[in-house]
Amino acid sequence: MTHTLVASATKEVIIGFDRPFCVIGERINPTGRKILNEELERGDFSRVEADAIAQVAAGATVLDINSGAVFSGKMAEDPRYADNNFVEPTLMAQLVEVVQNVTDCPLCIDSSVPGALEAGLANAKGRPLLNSVTGEEERMEKVLPLVKKYDVPVVAISNDDTGISEDPDVRFAVAKKIVERAADYGIKPNDIVVDPLVMPVGAMATAGLQVFTLVRRLREELGVNTTCGASNISFGLPNRHGINNAFLPMAYAAGMTSAIMNPVAVPVGAKKIAEKRAEVEAAGIILPPDMDDEAFVKMFGLGSTRSRPGKEMEAIRAANFLLNHDSGGAAWIAFNRDPDAAPGGARGARAGRAGRAGRRGA
Amino acid sequence: MTHTLVASATKEVIIGFDRPFCVIGERINPTGRKILNEELERGDFSRVEADAIAQVAAGATVLDINSGAVFSGKMAEDPRYADNNFVEPTLMAQLVEVVQNVTDCPLCIDSSVPGALEAGLANAKGRPLLNSVTGEEERMEKVLPLVKKYDVPVVAISNDDTGISEDPDVRFAVAKKIVERAADYGIKPNDIVVDPLVMPVGAMATAGLQVFTLVRRLREELGVNTTCGASNISFGLPNRHGINNAFLPMAYAAGMTSAIMNPVAVPVGAKKIAEKRAEVEAAGIILPPDMDDEAFVKMFGLGSTRSRPGKEMEAIRAANFLLNHDSGGAAWIAFNRDPDAAPGGARGARAGRAGRAGRRGA
Repeated sequence: MTHTLVASATKEVIIGFDRPFCVIGERINPTGRKILNEELERGDFSRVEADAIAQVAAGATVLDINSGAVFSGKMAEDPRYADNNFVEPTLMAQLVEVVQNVTDCPLCIDSSVPGALEAGLANAKGRPLLNSVTGEEERMEKVLPLVKKYDVPVVAISNDDTGISEDPDVRFAVAKKIVERAADYGIKPNDIVVDPLVMPVGAMATAGLQVFTLVRRLREELGVNTTCGASNISFGLPNRHGINNAFLPMAYAAGMTSAIMNPVAVPVGAKKIAEKRAEVEAAGIILPPDMDDEAFVKMFGLGSTRSRPGKEMEAIRAANFLLNHDSGGAAWIAFNRDPDAAPGGARGARAGRAGRAGRRGA
Repeated sequence: MTHTLVASATKEVIIGFDRPFCVIGERINPTGRKILNEELERGDFSRVEADAIAQVAAGATVLDINSGAVFSGKMAEDPRYADNNFVEPTLMAQLVEVVQNVTDCPLCIDSSVPGALEAGLANAKGRPLLNSVTGEEERMEKVLPLVKKYDVPVVAISNDDTGISEDPDVRFAVAKKIVERAADYGIKPNDIVVDPLVMPVGAMATAGLQVFTLVRRLREELGVNTTCGASNISFGLPNRHGINNAFLPMAYAAGMTSAIMNPVAVPVGAKKIAEKRAEVEAAGIILPPDMDDEAFVKMFGLGSTRSRPGKEMEAIRAANFLLNHDSGGAAWIAFNRDPDAAPGGARGARAGRAGRAGRRGA
């Protein structure tokens, strides 16, 4: 049985066909998050802390940390900031430190910059997952030695120097090449977690089928664990949660063992609350003057202003149960009684403050 | 490719691995529906009509009609009513007639009473699905000749004279026996839709895995289509929709081609509305005096007092898309714009009033 060990100083997660699905929280990533990017440029890590805690509370078992920020302000003063080889290693070390201070959740060190990967590896305790190597020659030459040196597992994305193929057989061949190249470095298949690349099903009708077929082949022929950027599948479509919620259990049933995804439901924002308050007023409803936003949101069925597990977590927990990784349903029952108190939930989120041991393999 | 043709007078549905999932609406069934049972005893078929229309509007592609009523009142006056062999044939003929008058949706004739099956077959136009034969000797001897005589497809439930086995290999063997026995009558495997029997995952931890494995074997080794009573999987558990919504896409991805299920969301009832009105009042909210229940329910996010597609239909439509049975996502997009207007929705529900042709094979 293929087991991929990912660990913090005090907590181990095993990715495997015989284990519950590994949810890699994707939120700590400045790409496309303008406010977070600006905060990081100012050295404000409060949102990173909150995102780490919220994701673990929602059920993330590994936290991805992506250092791909663009510091346009600093860039204007110091041209070195235009180079991510300069920005990211320092930022990655800071992000790893900040996140390790608020949670004991194992980490996934995510950057396109090899120096940032090494900075993450040097600062992360335990055995983080490295994200990522591809089938590109230069990338393999830079990343695989790091994987070997630090004895960590790595995400292998199935594109190469020719780009991303639409042909699943080519993507399988790229994954096979990476596994074989890794073997040359003494890296075993159980430390390779292949991302077969998920295309948007709205743009490519066979995108879902490709993933289900590839995952099964990767499992049966290469014996590797798999992951994916799950939400890609629904890109550009209405009701993305509806697509994601079916895709994740289907991919999992086909043999997918983890996904990089957002475990947290988007809290109801100020704009939506203002719109609903206007609708309520227009209908002639009179509210008590002291009704705060949280009470309002709850009364009118909008959800919550607080962080809660997203619907995808319900789908994954149900699938865990259905694949006999939650025998008797104790986790399912706890999750539905109180999502915040479910196993993998908030109870464990701050446990990492205590008991820090040295990292392995460094 | 295995194709099972089910048809009304004017509409054909093909069950097959290369077709969208076949949703067999289960609501027209007096078992456990006290009010419906009483109405049927009085000869009131209005709820049957409404259920037929609502299920087709929600996306059912076949309607199950179960005649298993218990007429306790009539029984007290006339002891013949204690025998379902007396009650069901007449009732089945009536139910078939009523449903055919309001929809052109193909039917599934469902009874434990052979006389009711024959009454349904004699009255249903087109090519209904027969529900069901089992591996019990007496049942095969009574039902398979009907299947042959009327040239219809049949649901084959994988239990036999020894009962329902917890061993999936035994259930597979029972299914194989039925397929072989049917062949003796000249019935082809593509007219057998096997129900591998779904156990509650709360009681049997391997229940989900058993179904996924069995469906794959039934498809690969026997080449048959499959169906199941989908909601059994979540029996006795909290948040049953959460389990069902993951189970259906997973079973479908494993090769399941249809399910007997409720496609309609439970409309918000009077009790829930009264409770929410009390909560609203207790919170000091003043409503306009003319706010009716539907406006109230909508404003406070309770859902709808009207029939709507259930969450399971969202999961199935998403899975159709992901398995490339909704290329480009036209059905998905329409469903999310207006569920009532989606393909298979309300538009077609009353089309059956026009253009009735003779049934086949009678």
